Amino acid sequence: MTRSVTGPGTTQIADRPGVVDLGPGHSSPSLYPSRELARAVEEVLRDAPGEALAYGANRGPAPLVEWLSSWLANVHGSPVDPSRILVTAGASAALDRLCSLFTRPGDAVLCEAPTYHLALAQLASRRLHVVPVASDARGPTPDALERAAREVPAAQEHVLFYTVPVHSNPRGASIPRDRWSSLCTVAKERGIHMVRDDVYAPLTYAEGVVHPIRADADADATVTSLGSFSKIVAPGLRVGWMITDPEVVDRLGNDGLARSGGGPSHTAAMIVARLCGSSGWDGHLRRLRREYSERRDVLVGALEAELGDLCEWQPVEGGFFVWLRFRHDLDAKTMLREAERHRVSYIPGSEFFPASVAGEGRRYARLSFSYHPADKLREGVSRLAHAWSTPGVPVYR
Amino acid sequence: MTRSVTGPGTTQIADRPGVVDLGPGHSSPSLYPSRELARAVEEVLRDAPGEALAYGANRGPAPLVEWLSSWLANVHGSPVDPSRILVTAGASAALDRLCSLFTRPGDAVLCEAPTYHLALAQLASRRLHVVPVASDARGPTPDALERAAREVPAAQEHVLFYTVPVHSNPRGASIPRDRWSSLCTVAKERGIHMVRDDVYAPLTYAEGVVHPIRADADADATVTSLGSFSKIVAPGLRVGWMITDPEVVDRLGNDGLARSGGGPSHTAAMIVARLCGSSGWDGHLRRLRREYSERRDVLVGALEAELGDLCEWQPVEGGFFVWLRFRHDLDAKTMLREAERHRVSYIPGSEFFPASVAGEGRRYARLSFSYHPADKLREGVSRLAHAWSTPGVPVYR
Repeated sequence: MTRSVTGPGTTQIADRPGVVDLGPGHSSPSLYPSRELARAVEEVLRDAPGEALAYGANRGPAPLVEWLSSWLANVHGSPVDPSRILVTAGASAALDRLCSLFTRPGDAVLCEAPTYHLALAQLASRRLHVVPVASDARGPTPDALERAAREVPAAQEHVLFYTVPVHSNPRGASIPRDRWSSLCTVAKERGIHMVRDDVYAPLTYAEGVVHPIRADADADATVTSLGSFSKIVAPGLRVGWMITDPEVVDRLGNDGLARSGGGPSHTAAMIVARLCGSSGWDGHLRRLRREYSERRDVLVGALEAELGDLCEWQPVEGGFFVWLRFRHDLDAKTMLREAERHRVSYIPGSEFFPASVAGEGRRYARLSFSYHPADKLREGVSRLAHAWSTPGVPVYR
Repeated sequence: MTRSVTGPGTTQIADRPGVVDLGPGHSSPSLYPSRELARAVEEVLRDAPGEALAYGANRGPAPLVEWLSSWLANVHGSPVDPSRILVTAGASAALDRLCSLFTRPGDAVLCEAPTYHLALAQLASRRLHVVPVASDARGPTPDALERAAREVPAAQEHVLFYTVPVHSNPRGASIPRDRWSSLCTVAKERGIHMVRDDVYAPLTYAEGVVHPIRADADADATVTSLGSFSKIVAPGLRVGWMITDPEVVDRLGNDGLARSGGGPSHTAAMIVARLCGSSGWDGHLRRLRREYSERRDVLVGALEAELGDLCEWQPVEGGFFVWLRFRHDLDAKTMLREAERHRVSYIPGSEFFPASVAGEGRRYARLSFSYHPADKLREGVSRLAHAWSTPGVPVYR
């Protein structure tokens, strides 16, 4: 039942033979643009090895910053001024940098609940205290944000609110624009720094949909958006970005870590810049969106056919996840034991809630459709259906 | 006089036209093994793109950990058990991880003085308070370490001591074995965790010299050694390692950041593993050592010929630096203004001391011989000699 996360090995997780694991929210290895990357590396090391291999510009190499500045209009609706972009070693590393800058051990951090379970793990490792912000079907509620903010000791200098507003991990759904606007209003009033984990924003499966970072010019709360190439190129490269206030870019780009080591993942960032600037980039993204939306259709279709009586879920317009809810009072952890017996797995909902409210995730399960091809997804659902119709399983009958 | 460290750009520093800048301790771009790296990338992306591009094993990919385990015997005298190795995104990132694990803002950290100026900047960005440990010609003294340790509030949980014991940045010299042993004894008695920045240890210019991490089996203090490929392959890759207690490896390899993002710089680490495992590796290292030792000979020879009356320095057996001391009471910052007027530069000694004792660096200057080829080094010293013999310069005459 455990996935290998440490210990000897080359990759973070090892496939368990014979098991269809719908747990990890990893992009699909078959969709890594490895040939295009090989070409990009060849060109970069041929044309400018000195630039690609030296200590990189602290805020990220100009070719990538400039490309992001214009390309991000496709994701967020308008170009982003380069002074607001910091290249990072992925979204997790970006969150770590923000924690270094804005928190001290023991501080409270607000988190939507449910939220990305490994962000919770990161905050715990930073010895931060998570205050959950309850969600309804449209995402975290302004009232809950207000209440949570009141739990933060007045003496605390900065208050971060971590949220995955677009194609949420684990909810699959996005925060509608008017809800986001109300959250921003509360954030501005209470001096909350909103940290949006936007890694799934480029993976929207309808055409031409953008996800503005600020809902409303009047509600100019402090907002930082975290982006990553992990889901749209390949995670091993460890390249992402942060869109934030120029002052934050300056502080992180001028701090001791950056002055000592230069920009993070510099060579990888130069390779990504070459890849993204190539003529094949738009086609690559279209292919990703088509593939992942097909996988979503397959998983959702199979769930409807085989588990529609037992479970429900919100429509999934992008990202990697279906957030399954048992229609009856069933414990997703108990159900997981049955599933594992039938060699299929997922992550039970309680892991996506801070420990203090873990019970709220009892009836939920996160299923990922990103990692496996269609036949594996169908097989996984079929095993779930089989597992949960076995006599003796504490189902709703 | 300023070097570009932030702002738009591709690399961390831009060469100032016409200036011979002996400041940066960067490896030489002409010595990056760029063709060998291109071949390694090609092979890795051809043979195992899925492994190289996926989220990497949290403690670093097995091929690199295993290679390091055996190769480190050449640097430290004996193989290192893989359970003691954590792959990092370079030595600076490793120091950052240790600070996350073992410090809180406001804590005291012990640092040898003088020390690597950007490590001081890193600790300051972490809001840590540096307590200097005074050095003599053989490195930090046990008495000074003892005194510094007494300045740490008793309530503080962990006490780190940062030092560059081998081919010190900026002193150029190493801590002799008996001195290291005495320091370890103090560290053990006082519960000090010694953090060795060993990035220059592989660049020892005499044959067959090793630098053991623990001086003596009896003095088994807690010691972490930081290593990096920045000086021996290329800094833009952001790949380094940490040799430490298995418990520290486990804690950092299991923490939230690692569980979320996997191993740092994973793809780059896979490429480095391929490069290091190739038949050309030993030749590459021999070439580096030969080139850098020739550059050292050129710089030291020119200094002897042109500035021997004005300055003195300790013998340099490895690494990148000559730590110049004015024989008379001259201020290296004042002298730098004259030097800059003659289009040559260096870093004045005061930058390598914590602010509270910066005056101790007044008579010192760090000159790096790593970045420039021989003719530039000669030209730089010739300009220094010229600058400092101009009438009106406050020299010793």
